[in-house]
Amino acid sequence: MTAPFATLEEFRHVLSQADGPDMGAIAGARDRNAQLTKPPAALGRLEELAIWYAGWRGTDRPEIANPQVIVFAANHGVCAQGVSAFPPEVTAQMVENFQHGGAAVNQLANTFGARMDVHTLDLDLPTQDFTKAPAMSDAEVVLALATGWNAVDPASDVLVAGEMGIGNTTSAAAIAAALFGGAAEDWVGRGTGVDDEGLARKTDVVARGLALHDTSDPLDALRCLGGRELAAMAGAIAAARHHRIPAILDGFICTAAAAVLEKTAEGALDHTVAGHLSDELAHKRLLDALELEPLLALRLRLGEGSGAALALGVLKGAVACHSGMATFAEAGVTDS
Amino acid sequence: MTAPFATLEEFRHVLSQADGPDMGAIAGARDRNAQLTKPPAALGRLEELAIWYAGWRGTDRPEIANPQVIVFAANHGVCAQGVSAFPPEVTAQMVENFQHGGAAVNQLANTFGARMDVHTLDLDLPTQDFTKAPAMSDAEVVLALATGWNAVDPASDVLVAGEMGIGNTTSAAAIAAALFGGAAEDWVGRGTGVDDEGLARKTDVVARGLALHDTSDPLDALRCLGGRELAAMAGAIAAARHHRIPAILDGFICTAAAAVLEKTAEGALDHTVAGHLSDELAHKRLLDALELEPLLALRLRLGEGSGAALALGVLKGAVACHSGMATFAEAGVTDS
Repeated sequence: MTAPFATLEEFRHVLSQADGPDMGAIAGARDRNAQLTKPPAALGRLEELAIWYAGWRGTDRPEIANPQVIVFAANHGVCAQGVSAFPPEVTAQMVENFQHGGAAVNQLANTFGARMDVHTLDLDLPTQDFTKAPAMSDAEVVLALATGWNAVDPASDVLVAGEMGIGNTTSAAAIAAALFGGAAEDWVGRGTGVDDEGLARKTDVVARGLALHDTSDPLDALRCLGGRELAAMAGAIAAARHHRIPAILDGFICTAAAAVLEKTAEGALDHTVAGHLSDELAHKRLLDALELEPLLALRLRLGEGSGAALALGVLKGAVACHSGMATFAEAGVTDS
Repeated sequence: MTAPFATLEEFRHVLSQADGPDMGAIAGARDRNAQLTKPPAALGRLEELAIWYAGWRGTDRPEIANPQVIVFAANHGVCAQGVSAFPPEVTAQMVENFQHGGAAVNQLANTFGARMDVHTLDLDLPTQDFTKAPAMSDAEVVLALATGWNAVDPASDVLVAGEMGIGNTTSAAAIAAALFGGAAEDWVGRGTGVDDEGLARKTDVVARGLALHDTSDPLDALRCLGGRELAAMAGAIAAARHHRIPAILDGFICTAAAAVLEKTAEGALDHTVAGHLSDELAHKRLLDALELEPLLALRLRLGEGSGAALALGVLKGAVACHSGMATFAEAGVTDS
C-alpha cells in the first residue's frame, strides 16, 4: 500500500473525498438489533456501537477478527525546554519495550486478540523546537502522514493508533489550542507527571509556540506544532477511513492528532469512537469540542494506545452481542 | 462442594467469619506496580483493580485463567400484580436461550473466555406474591442460597453472578428499600420497560410489600421480598468470598442481592467490584449507598450478568498489565 498523497494539499483532497458509511448495512443492522432477545435498547451504548461498526464494515452482521494496534514513536525538539518528567532517551527505550512485549499496550493487545506493530519515525532526528521554528517541514510532515497511512493493514477490522514520544503532550496541547482557541493553560496538563514548575514551563512553551506560528490551517498547525508520531496517527486514522476500518481513539495526544483531520474535513472522524477519557487534564475539553463521548473513564493517562486497546474489549463485546445473539423468533422467546 | 450452612443463622455465621485479603500479596503487588514501565499511577483504576485482585488471590502476580459466569433463573409470584412488560413464561424461554448460547451474556462470556453455567430454581414454583405473604419460607431461601453457593466452581478465579426472572426488578427495589430506607418510588424503575402506568403499579406493589413485612433484618428482607435467583446470587457471592474468588457485581438486581450480604456483615463485599452502572433508575442510588464505584457506564439495563461480563474484559486487562508488564530494570528504561 502506498499512500495516495505526496503533498499536504493532496492529503487534504483525500480527506475531502472520503465516503460515508453503508446506509444499507446500517438499516439492516438496526433491523437485526430490534429482533434480538432483549428488551428494546437494553444493551444501551453497545447497540449503537454495533450498528455504527456494521455501517463502516458494510454488513449487517459484522465480526471483529483482526484488530490492529499500531504504536508510533518519535522525538520532540521542544524537550530541550524541559517540558517532561522523563528524558527523551526514554522514547527509544520504550520502543524496545514495545518490541519485547513488555509495555502495558502489549498486554492489552494480547488480552483482546489484536496484532501489534511498532513504527519509529526518525528517533535520532527530533522535530524542531516549536518555540523557535516550525516543528517539521512540508516534506517531513507528509512523510510522517504517509508512514502512518502505510502502517495500516487493509485486512484489519479495527484500528488502534497509539504513540510514544517524550514531550508529546506539549505538542498535543499546542495543536489543540491552535485548532480550538483558548489560552495555553486551558490545554496544558501534567503529562507523565511534571510538577507545578514544570507545568508553568509547559504552559509558557505552548504560548510561545502559538505566538510564533500562523496555525490558522489545521494541517499547518500539525506541521508547526506537531510531532512525527502525531502526524503518523493522523495518517493512520485517515487510512482506516479509506479502508472502512473503524478506529478507536486513545487519549489526549491521539485525539489532538485526530482533531486535525476533523478540522480539515468535517466528518473525517465519523469512523472513529473515543475509547476513553484520559486523566490528562484537557482531554475532556478536547472530546467535548469534538462532541465525542468516551466509552471508558478509568483515569488512565499512559498513552501508547492503552486506553483505546482497553476499549477494544467493549467494542468486541458489542459486536459479539449484535452478531451472535439469537432473535426472538430463532429462540422462541415471547416479545413484549 | 456442599454449602456450610443449613439455616439462615448458620449462613449469617459464615458471613461473619469471612477472612480478609492477603495483606502480604497486596504489599507485594503494590511494590511490583511501582516498578512497572509507566509513569506512577498512569494506569489509573487498572492499577487499583490489579492490586485488589492480587490480594484476594494471595499472589503478587496473579492471572485470570478460569472466569465463571453463572446465570440463576427463577419466577416471581408478584408478577400476578402486572409489574413487568414481559409475561413470566419468558423466564423459561430465556433459560433455553442461555442453554443454546443465544443470549447477550453468552456472547460476552465467549468474548472474554469465561465458562458459563445456568441454574434454574424451581421455575414452575414462583415465589409467593410478596404483597400477600412472605416470598419464601426459611427453608426455601436457605435452599436458594445453598444452590448459589454450590454453583461456584472453587477452581475458578473470577465470578460473575447474573440473573433471569421476570418481575425481579420489583423484588430488587423492595429489598433495596428495606435495606436502605426511603420511599418505594426512590427504588422503583422501568425494568424491562414498563410504561408510566406500569411504573405506578410497581411502586404501589413495592410500598405494599414493605408495609406488610418486618424486614428490619437483611436476610429476612431477602426471604420476604426476594426471589430465588436473588438469594442464589447472594449465596454465590458469599461462596466466592469463601474460596477467595473476586466477584464482579452486575446491575440493579445483582447489587440488591449483594447488598443483603453487606448489610448482614459489614465488609462482606470487599472481594467484589461493581462492574457497571445500569440504566435502571435506582442502581446509582444503590451503588452510592454501598460506596461502590462502577467500572463501566454504558446505559446497559439487561441483567443476565451482561454488564459484569463486559467488565470482566476490563479486569482481565488490568491483571494482564500488572502481571505481564516489564519493570524499569527488566526493560532498561530510565525511571523519572
